[in-house]
Amino acid sequence: MYEIGVVHRNIERAEARLADKLAAFGSATVHEAMGRVGLMKPFMRPIYPGAQVAGTAVTVLLQPGDNWMLHVAAEQIRAGDVVVAAVTSECTDGFFGELLGTSFKARGARALVIDAGCRDVKALTEIGFPVWSRAISAKGTIKATLGSVNIPVVCAVALVHPGDVIVADVDGVVCVPRAAAAATLEAATKREAHETEKRTELASGVLGLDMYKMRDTLKAAGLRYID
Amino acid sequence: MYEIGVVHRNIERAEARLADKLAAFGSATVHEAMGRVGLMKPFMRPIYPGAQVAGTAVTVLLQPGDNWMLHVAAEQIRAGDVVVAAVTSECTDGFFGELLGTSFKARGARALVIDAGCRDVKALTEIGFPVWSRAISAKGTIKATLGSVNIPVVCAVALVHPGDVIVADVDGVVCVPRAAAAATLEAATKREAHETEKRTELASGVLGLDMYKMRDTLKAAGLRYID
Amino acid sequence: MYEIGVVHRNIERAEARLADKLAAFGSATVHEAMGRVGLMKPFMRPIYPGAQVAGTAVTVLLQPGDNWMLHVAAEQIRAGDVVVAAVTSECTDGFFGELLGTSFKARGARALVIDAGCRDVKALTEIGFPVWSRAISAKGTIKATLGSVNIPVVCAVALVHPGDVIVADVDGVVCVPRAAAAATLEAATKREAHETEKRTELASGVLGLDMYKMRDTLKAAGLRYID
Amino acid sequence: MYEIGVVHRNIERAEARLADKLAAFGSATVHEAMGRVGLMKPFMRPIYPGAQVAGTAVTVLLQPGDNWMLHVAAEQIRAGDVVVAAVTSECTDGFFGELLGTSFKARGARALVIDAGCRDVKALTEIGFPVWSRAISAKGTIKATLGSVNIPVVCAVALVHPGDVIVADVDGVVCVPRAAAAATLEAATKREAHETEKRTELASGVLGLDMYKMRDTLKAAGLRYID
Amino acid sequence: MYEIGVVHRNIERAEARLADKLAAFGSATVHEAMGRVGLMKPFMRPIYPGAQVAGTAVTVLLQPGDNWMLHVAAEQIRAGDVVVAAVTSECTDGFFGELLGTSFKARGARALVIDAGCRDVKALTEIGFPVWSRAISAKGTIKATLGSVNIPVVCAVALVHPGDVIVADVDGVVCVPRAAAAATLEAATKREAHETEKRTELASGVLGLDMYKMRDTLKAAGLRYID
Amino acid sequence: MYEIGVVHRNIERAEARLADKLAAFGSATVHEAMGRVGLMKPFMRPIYPGAQVAGTAVTVLLQPGDNWMLHVAAEQIRAGDVVVAAVTSECTDGFFGELLGTSFKARGARALVIDAGCRDVKALTEIGFPVWSRAISAKGTIKATLGSVNIPVVCAVALVHPGDVIVADVDGVVCVPRAAAAATLEAATKREAHETEKRTELASGVLGLDMYKMRDTLKAAGLRYID
Repeated sequence: MYEIGVVHRNIERAEARLADKLAAFGSATVHEAMGRVGLMKPFMRPIYPGAQVAGTAVTVLLQPGDNWMLHVAAEQIRAGDVVVAAVTSECTDGFFGELLGTSFKARGARALVIDAGCRDVKALTEIGFPVWSRAISAKGTIKATLGSVNIPVVCAVALVHPGDVIVADVDGVVCVPRAAAAATLEAATKREAHETEKRTELASGVLGLDMYKMRDTLKAAGLRYID
Repeated sequence: MYEIGVVHRNIERAEARLADKLAAFGSATVHEAMGRVGLMKPFMRPIYPGAQVAGTAVTVLLQPGDNWMLHVAAEQIRAGDVVVAAVTSECTDGFFGELLGTSFKARGARALVIDAGCRDVKALTEIGFPVWSRAISAKGTIKATLGSVNIPVVCAVALVHPGDVIVADVDGVVCVPRAAAAATLEAATKREAHETEKRTELASGVLGLDMYKMRDTLKAAGLRYID
Repeated sequence: MYEIGVVHRNIERAEARLADKLAAFGSATVHEAMGRVGLMKPFMRPIYPGAQVAGTAVTVLLQPGDNWMLHVAAEQIRAGDVVVAAVTSECTDGFFGELLGTSFKARGARALVIDAGCRDVKALTEIGFPVWSRAISAKGTIKATLGSVNIPVVCAVALVHPGDVIVADVDGVVCVPRAAAAATLEAATKREAHETEKRTELASGVLGLDMYKMRDTLKAAGLRYID
Repeated sequence: MYEIGVVHRNIERAEARLADKLAAFGSATVHEAMGRVGLMKPFMRPIYPGAQVAGTAVTVLLQPGDNWMLHVAAEQIRAGDVVVAAVTSECTDGFFGELLGTSFKARGARALVIDAGCRDVKALTEIGFPVWSRAISAKGTIKATLGSVNIPVVCAVALVHPGDVIVADVDGVVCVPRAAAAATLEAATKREAHETEKRTELASGVLGLDMYKMRDTLKAAGLRYID
Repeated sequence: MYEIGVVHRNIERAEARLADKLAAFGSATVHEAMGRVGLMKPFMRPIYPGAQVAGTAVTVLLQPGDNWMLHVAAEQIRAGDVVVAAVTSECTDGFFGELLGTSFKARGARALVIDAGCRDVKALTEIGFPVWSRAISAKGTIKATLGSVNIPVVCAVALVHPGDVIVADVDGVVCVPRAAAAATLEAATKREAHETEKRTELASGVLGLDMYKMRDTLKAAGLRYID
Repeated sequence: MYEIGVVHRNIERAEARLADKLAAFGSATVHEAMGRVGLMKPFMRPIYPGAQVAGTAVTVLLQPGDNWMLHVAAEQIRAGDVVVAAVTSECTDGFFGELLGTSFKARGARALVIDAGCRDVKALTEIGFPVWSRAISAKGTIKATLGSVNIPVVCAVALVHPGDVIVADVDGVVCVPRAAAAATLEAATKREAHETEKRTELASGVLGLDMYKMRDTLKAAGLRYID
């Protein structure tokens, strides 16, 4: 259940160096490294190409058509944060635009991840503040009803706690719980090393069937080749 | 983050009498009594009309197209439970049908709430086991990959912990956290009493404008009447 | 463009007897009689089976997640009206429930058509107040922002002016402009008479190919039969 | 590729007795008996509750907003057929209503399965002609462009050849290729016998975990129980 | 209600200089300046990046899968127009491509806004004719059924009259009624000036909380800070 | 019906030179040349801009959340092929990424067309391996259940046989049956020549109304001009 009308000022953030390193791996590798969990739904898309970031989550719960709490959240941002915003009911309005983007950037935020709409895409692209959103919409919002800041939120079906690491790129957005960040980094590092080898083999024309030794398992499962 | 491959056997359930009483209020009143949070998305619909239940949550995390964990969950059911099932990615396959329905009912479950598909609707209707699902689909599933039982899950965008109270009816499905169940019951009871009075007034032709004394606020907000 | 913050008290309604007679034809016949225009999108569905009504439109423009204007609209209802509600952005929240239903019914409304969500379906069914909506949702709304009453609105993609005739049944919802109501009734009456004959012929096994004399046109269009 | 503008008059139908017997099993059992293939997408829903039929497919390819070919198809119907209609692009218009329903019924058709919209739901319910469709819509259609009859069509993502057996009920619609009908009936019969036993065991409280002997496999897969 | 089969040749257009100036502000600012109305749904997207235009509306009503009326509309285009096309039922076919784009451009049109599909995206990008559409689809259309030109249409849920100003960019498409164009331009100009100041403040790290003096209102609404 | 668990090793491919020439025309022209059939649904989009390819189809049937068969398919690829992958139920998981892309490219494949999700978009863009997919998702898949390779599949609602020609570009994806490839190329060539003339005329300001001689037909259909 969401607690409405509260702002948690003291949250425990994952270590900055972990977020920095996870950014380089990207969402697919990190998601695999976590055991294939923590991923937001694929309707979350970046508003401009090329963005790839990671940071610690400042969470916001918004009411539909109301972006008041984004202003409250701005004060809680520290350098290296990624703001993660959920809405209490499905809404594609443009909760976030150039002014808030300017403010968030000035406060040190690296990105916004919002399960709703975003606008001023041209300006946000120019100032280089990346947003992952479910929609782009010029529709403005009001400031009338309280939500909360830094409570656990469900954003695009992923559960995000304040201080978790958010990794976002062209493939999607993944949330790494603070307590799992170090282990996930280690797993991602191993996985990546492993993949480099495999990539070289595959590029030379070796088949995954042979490289992964799948032929026996496939046969046992009943696969039949017909000429 | 979801923990994969675990079954928590000892969960603390909300008191049975709280669930029983909350059932009578229905999802809309309970959702309001909680401060308008905790509601699942409106794509969750009952498979047959007339069902209205509440019970304590046994949670399940499933893999797409794989209903293995529902069998594992069956063993954890106690009389008065409602099973709540989430899937790691969006899937409308029919994870649940007559056989599991028979089993769940025999174990004392009151309903299933599943963010995926359900089948054997005719048989489930006949045996009187209600299901709220996002789809009805004859598509069967396999039993190959582990999920978990009795971990916190995000079901239809609502966060559900094992032991929470689930209230489901024609209006939707709401999750009342175990710790909030007593207070929510109290609030719902007050609200309901209040509504009965209002209903009588409105039925007599009194306007909400007058009953709620909205005319001044509307005027202050700038509402203009044009003849 | 919508005018925000106004209530038009004096609207010119289509004649009650026209609405009464159009109700009997149903939305499909009326929509055909109008030249296949005026229909709302098929996502508008009745909340319970069997309802078939027509009435004169009282229109409402709502803000997302805010049902304030429905209370303002209640005062403008006269016996025989159907309230038609649009929202400035897409929203499935439950804007309407038992209390407003009781009030609308007491004021003489025959139905609500709302391009948003509805709740208290069980109670509305019991009191016999039909609603056509895009969703059923227990999610409640606030009362904070002005919309308008009795301005032209776009509801489920159909343009509705106050005083137009709304015809709603299991097949959908159609809006007949006030000025076109008499002609539409005449056209629907003729069409229906025509259809009764055709139904009898078809029931006897005569083919539409022969009854409508389609064979030559099909041949001219190039249709080939292959044995 | 679809061949446009042709009507195949001589199609080879599956044996009537196979269709009759498959009807009793329902779509879920038949779909399992076929190895979990052949199912239409779950957006195909019956227009009224309780219908459960099977029959041999007469297929139709329609153009968007144009129901001309349904009249051409009527002539090809034989007693025991189910008409299966696809459209060349996604469309929810009401291609089929009372008149065509009367005609199809008079020709001996058992049902229509249409990957588009249907109207006159009240009348079709009264005359007892079941339709599975992706939408209900009062929107009418024209008769201007050729499609085809009795060519292979893709309906709701399932490939249907003329003469295949179509099984439709509340769980969905499945297509059994003519050549596979006898084997599918046999498999469904075995499956059903097997399920009756299992149902009895589960109803007595036996767990699927034990009945299916899943405990060792789950353990091997790494499932951990936490107290 | 739509009037079918008519072309209005004499429409009153908003002043060209108003459209030219509104283009520079973009859809978000213009939509705010109008009081947050007039916006099309966010599923309307530009077919290539970077386009930002405004012009006076020539409206078209199309039938599903039929682009005949776009040719009729071409004749009504004057330099500075934006063609706005609606369809009588939802359809994603590619109604518009390189040839019509060449023709529209030659006639002086600045853009097409179509609540349907568009194709030949590569060629349209090369000739620099921007389109906002709900889909990109290679599916072609026929020329068989009348619609209308220069009647009021509902396009992507916005009501557009011939001669209104259409402002379109990456954030969406907004319709400014002809009569409101001058006032909207004035309001947008003020708003923009205001925003420039605010942007500077926010960029320096000042919080919206302080700049907008929100702290007292938030406190009054019950916001609690927890350390 | 899909046959599960088989790999057809010997498929008859359309001639390479036909695919090569069809690529240049693009999906819209080829789709028209085929009589407006064979097109995949418009939700299939390229993962990066600018790709335009054609090749012979190697088909794959996948199970939801399981990419095992893509490895089996890799072995069947010959230079000039396009892999076409369908899934037995709707799924947006990322079945394909950098490693498989490296492997497919090494085997000579020109592209992947998959009615599911794709990931590693950045890497695939860098190595220049184009994918058309219904989603982009970092969600990984397992390797547990058999599907098939080189059977006829329904991909994004189009029926594809192994060896057919697949033409894909920014407008969409079209499947040309092997037997129709030569005739389609001829028709496309004629059409293109024809279009070049028309383009020149339209660019000079000639109206389609005159060029296509539509005025009489429009008048006969009842079009009225109103001044």
